[in-house]
Parts: sequence; C-alpha cells; structure tokens
Amino acid sequence: MKKIGVVLSGCGVYDGAEIHESVITLLAIDKLGVEAICMAPNKNQMHVVNHLTGSVAEGETRNVLVESARIARGNIKDIKEVSANDFDALILPGGFGAAKNLCDFAVKGSECEVDPDIQRLVRETVSAKKPLGAICISPALIAAICKDGPVKPEITIGSDADTAKAINSMGSTHVACPVKEFVVDKENRIVTTPAYMLAERISEAAEGIEKLVSEVIGMLNDG
Amino acid sequence: MKKIGVVLSGCGVYDGAEIHESVITLLAIDKLGVEAICMAPNKNQMHVVNHLTGSVAEGETRNVLVESARIARGNIKDIKEVSANDFDALILPGGFGAAKNLCDFAVKGSECEVDPDIQRLVRETVSAKKPLGAICISPALIAAICKDGPVKPEITIGSDADTAKAINSMGSTHVACPVKEFVVDKENRIVTTPAYMLAERISEAAEGIEKLVSEVIGMLNDG
Repeated sequence: MKKIGVVLSGCGVYDGAEIHESVITLLAIDKLGVEAICMAPNKNQMHVVNHLTGSVAEGETRNVLVESARIARGNIKDIKEVSANDFDALILPGGFGAAKNLCDFAVKGSECEVDPDIQRLVRETVSAKKPLGAICISPALIAAICKDGPVKPEITIGSDADTAKAINSMGSTHVACPVKEFVVDKENRIVTTPAYMLAERISEAAEGIEKLVSEVIGMLNDG
Repeated sequence: MKKIGVVLSGCGVYDGAEIHESVITLLAIDKLGVEAICMAPNKNQMHVVNHLTGSVAEGETRNVLVESARIARGNIKDIKEVSANDFDALILPGGFGAAKNLCDFAVKGSECEVDPDIQRLVRETVSAKKPLGAICISPALIAAICKDGPVKPEITIGSDADTAKAINSMGSTHVACPVKEFVVDKENRIVTTPAYMLAERISEAAEGIEKLVSEVIGMLNDG
C-alpha cells in the first residue's frame, strides 16, 4: 500500500492546522486506498487563539504535536523521526499553523524562518522527486523552504496580492488559481490549491483538495 | 435555504466532538445545498485529554463552546440561545464529548444526567417532528433524553453489547447496524449511524454519515 505523509501544525485555523482541510485531505487519501501517515513538530505553538473571539489567549501554551493528535485520533508521529524514505508523497494542509508553527511567515513574510525539521523533510521530498502537495497558505512555506535552494517552484495560494508578492520575492512563481482548481508544477512534482485562502464554503475547499489528492496519487502511479 | 443545526461538544475524540465525524457532517450538509448552524454549550469540558498519550491533562480546563469553535471556524452559537424554530433538522456528531460534556453517559451509563440545554433542544426537535440525526455514541444521549418521555426511539450505536444494553435499559430499542449503513425510526424521524463506534478507517465512517445526512435532508423534503 502506498503511503502519504500529512504534516499537521496544530488543531484550529487561527493557531494550528485548518481542521476542515486536514480532515478532507485524510478522507480523500483513504478513499483512494492510500495510507496517510500524520506527523507534526513536538514544540509549543506560536500562541493559542480563542476561536470564539479571535483573540490570543494570553498565558496559555499548547504543543503542536499534542494538538495535532486530536485531528489524527492519536495516530501521529514526531516529524523529527520521519524521513522521506517513510512515504511516497507528502501533503501539507493549511491553516495559520503552517505560517505560525512550521515557519513564521504570518509575522515576517518573505523574511520568515522555517522550522528545521519541516525544512529538512520538504527538501528530502523535493530532491527525491516524490510528489509534494500544499494547500491554502502552505505553498508560502514551500517557497520559504526553496528560497536558498536550486528548485524554484510554480505554486498558488489563490489570488491574494500581498501573499503572491511575498512568494515571488522568495524566488518561487505564483500562479493565480480559482478555489476549485489546482496548480501543478510538473517538473518539480509540486501540486497546490487555494482552499480556504479563497473558499467561502467547505464544499469549495473540498473540491480543490480532492482534486489535489487525486493528482498527487496519480503521480505515484507515473513515478 | 433549509437549515440543519449541528451540535458540537468540544474538539477531539477523547474529550470533545469527534473531529472527522463533525467535518464530514458539515461537508455532507453543504454539498447538498443546506446551511449548517453549529452550536455548543458554553461551559467547561468534563476534562481535557492529551490525545497523544491518551491521559487526562491534570489541572487543565477548556470550554466546550470555545473548543467547538475550532471545528466551526468561529461561526458558532451558544446552544442556550438556539430553539428548534431556528432550524429544520438537528444532527449530533459523536466523540466522547457527547457522552462527557452533553451528558455523563461515559461515566454513569444508563443513570446519566443530561445537560439541560441539549435536553430542551432535542425534546423540542422531537416533539416538533423535525428530523433528528445522531452519530456514533450520540444515540445513547438521545436515549437518555427520551428516558422519561413518551417517545421510545429505535436507534443504533453499531453493535457494542454494553452500550446497546444501556440504551435498552433507558427505554429505547437498540438495533444492530453495520458501519456503512444507518437506522431510521420513521415514526419519530430519528436517523442514527455507528461511525467510529465501528469504523476502522475514516472512509467507513464517512459512508455512513453521508447516508445519514442524505436521509435527514430527504425527510425535510417529505415534511
């Protein structure tokens, strides 16, 4: 059975992995008969956001791996223990966690720093030419990881002008894309879709994500 | 546009709403062109469980409404402010939250007490003959709510013998059901499916839940 790594970054759109995108990704993978391997970094979140009010919960701390385990129903690995040899493809759902916990793009934009373990794992995946999928804001993380490397991917986060500009300034190329579609960088085997960067309804996000997962799994059969 | 209330009970299978079941419910509702209205009680959870280790996180407290807001992306109401006039049907996803936060069935079995607001809302729904869907362990909550009332529903939680016995002892009738199917009590307009009471894969839970949502929405068009 083929395996796809799924990188989670907490549990909740404002401080972690976007829950709908994560579950839709896991469901699409399972429906296509592929095994999902969830992983997350074992460190504290940038902060905790009260999702009812939208405010930062001062003084509260939560661990990215422990919160991600909620989405994974406890079946999750510390990303430090995972290498690209453990899977056939890698997919990153979105949510602010990708831009706050896996890197600090949400705060520093194109000057962001990337978590060393996600940087290592994405570089291993790209250099092994294993398919890589990135959803919502995660393509900005991919651009940050590729900033100083030889690979210059074509990716999308939908149409947000400031984010697109930041992606281009890191050396990647942003391509505008509607919510229900996806962008494929065939040379680098990278697939991206806007999801909640543009979606106004869960079914819109789902359509793009289902197509992305199907494209990534299709590449496994090519490769 | 028709509206379906969705009762959440936190965010995570071991101390709140089961995340996969909740998201799959919201997605199935939206795909069928119906609006979901999320709600949860504004009170503390029974406890917080570390989903990586499975242990109770001693000394930690989380609020059911605030955590449920993670699944609802902030778009959620305090159940106290909702009546059955606000929706056309009501669906309860599962997870231990349904048996720990909406009632204490997880601790007390058939002797459990029910949160007064969920009790009121379910009774309003059933007596208005609006369709009611319950997933996973939530049918045990429905049985507890109906214990002293005139309605004696036929429901399923799959095949777990102890839970089935507790349901029967509260005056409801348990019907065994495979994971990808559902049980309909036509007279009382109650639809139930086992989901993660039996599912070993997310796609198994999804199949039963998608059928339940479709059945509930079909009843709206009958009624």
